[in-house]
Amino acid sequence: MSYSRGNKDYEGKAKTIYQVEGHPELIWLEFKNSLTAFNAQKKGEFEGKGKINLAISNIIFQFLKKQDIPTHCVATISDNEIVCKKLKIVPIEVVIRNYLAGSLAKKFNLPEGGRLTSPLFELYYKNDELQDPFISDQQALMFDFVDSEQQLNQIKQLSFKINKLLIQIFHQCGIKLIDFKIEYGVNQQGQLYLADEITPDSCRLWDNKSEEKLDKDRFRRDLGQVKESYLEVLKRLQQIGSR
Amino acid sequence: MSYSRGNKDYEGKAKTIYQVEGHPELIWLEFKNSLTAFNAQKKGEFEGKGKINLAISNIIFQFLKKQDIPTHCVATISDNEIVCKKLKIVPIEVVIRNYLAGSLAKKFNLPEGGRLTSPLFELYYKNDELQDPFISDQQALMFDFVDSEQQLNQIKQLSFKINKLLIQIFHQCGIKLIDFKIEYGVNQQGQLYLADEITPDSCRLWDNKSEEKLDKDRFRRDLGQVKESYLEVLKRLQQIGSR
Repeated sequence: MSYSRGNKDYEGKAKTIYQVEGHPELIWLEFKNSLTAFNAQKKGEFEGKGKINLAISNIIFQFLKKQDIPTHCVATISDNEIVCKKLKIVPIEVVIRNYLAGSLAKKFNLPEGGRLTSPLFELYYKNDELQDPFISDQQALMFDFVDSEQQLNQIKQLSFKINKLLIQIFHQCGIKLIDFKIEYGVNQQGQLYLADEITPDSCRLWDNKSEEKLDKDRFRRDLGQVKESYLEVLKRLQQIGSR
Repeated sequence: MSYSRGNKDYEGKAKTIYQVEGHPELIWLEFKNSLTAFNAQKKGEFEGKGKINLAISNIIFQFLKKQDIPTHCVATISDNEIVCKKLKIVPIEVVIRNYLAGSLAKKFNLPEGGRLTSPLFELYYKNDELQDPFISDQQALMFDFVDSEQQLNQIKQLSFKINKLLIQIFHQCGIKLIDFKIEYGVNQQGQLYLADEITPDSCRLWDNKSEEKLDKDRFRRDLGQVKESYLEVLKRLQQIGSR
């Protein structure tokens, strides 16, 4: 099946969204070379970033799809373009943490890298203006960010399942999955799908042995070797795929 | 039974804690005239504040005790001193909200005063240095701020029950209970008690008709008539008591 790109719908921080001609049920995603952090107060980019991230996300989403996780992916168009299901995005960012890092370490003034006793499920209200505040399950329900307790439970169960699968695939790459952020969307029939992307922009990935960071923290914290780290993640994922 | 004040244990923001001579199972609380807000960045005081707050808290705690809520109160010593059970304080602040106000209204950029669809239960980690961060139930469990899921459930059920009772007593005073903060402690046998205080320092109280604030927001927001409002709350509680 071939698709034609339609009008631009929305320019996001890391992706541009277009319509798909003759397919109101689909969207066209273009992965950009830009990098942002701290609610877009810090901006950067590197050549090839969109292509690297899409390649990484595609490998992961295909792996998840094989394991019966419903995802928004429909077709890959080019190195940095895919066609996806058009979904009503649930306005929450789900974060699953396996180790202490980032805002959680800061919140409790604890050192990064400590293993949590079990995976921690967190919700953030997806709202740039309000700086994506951390919310409780009850707040997500009360302010109608999720449709129902049933939907929230489905999101929770699916997220823990995705965590197990991601730990597994990254472990095969010699990478420790510290934490990650995912988003969900719902189609017109009310079915839930994993949306957005899974990339070094949305995960904390540490080399298993050296604990070297292979993710967006390299950009956030000016650690250098940003492109090299993203490429390293892609290379390792491609190697396990070809085994 | 008569008690003698022992050495000073701790000087808090609104109360000083002393030992009780010969009673290691008890503490002596002195209610101070000081008022603080914004993690003690704003400081104030007014003459008689300690006495007014203790009188208010005593009426409320006695009412709750009659309704089978376990409280830390043991004996009133003077206008501004009480003797309480010595408890291991659970390091969380429980906030129950019935209407939108304060940090919740700010968090979602919503106007104050809107009625919530049901009472909202919130947890904050009691830690001045970390500025009492908002936490989820799972974080409270994972970082051992509560002993067990069972204890957390007990805290939740007790808090909702206290909310119902407080709504009732304040309604009789022509006051709308917007929200309030409570703390719990555990004795050596592991039994849970309501601790600390319930006063205009720890509640948002609005006059039912005029919606005039009768609580610490008058101090936080420089609305004036702070003492008069606290006295008004006390007067109304005393009136229903004498009916």
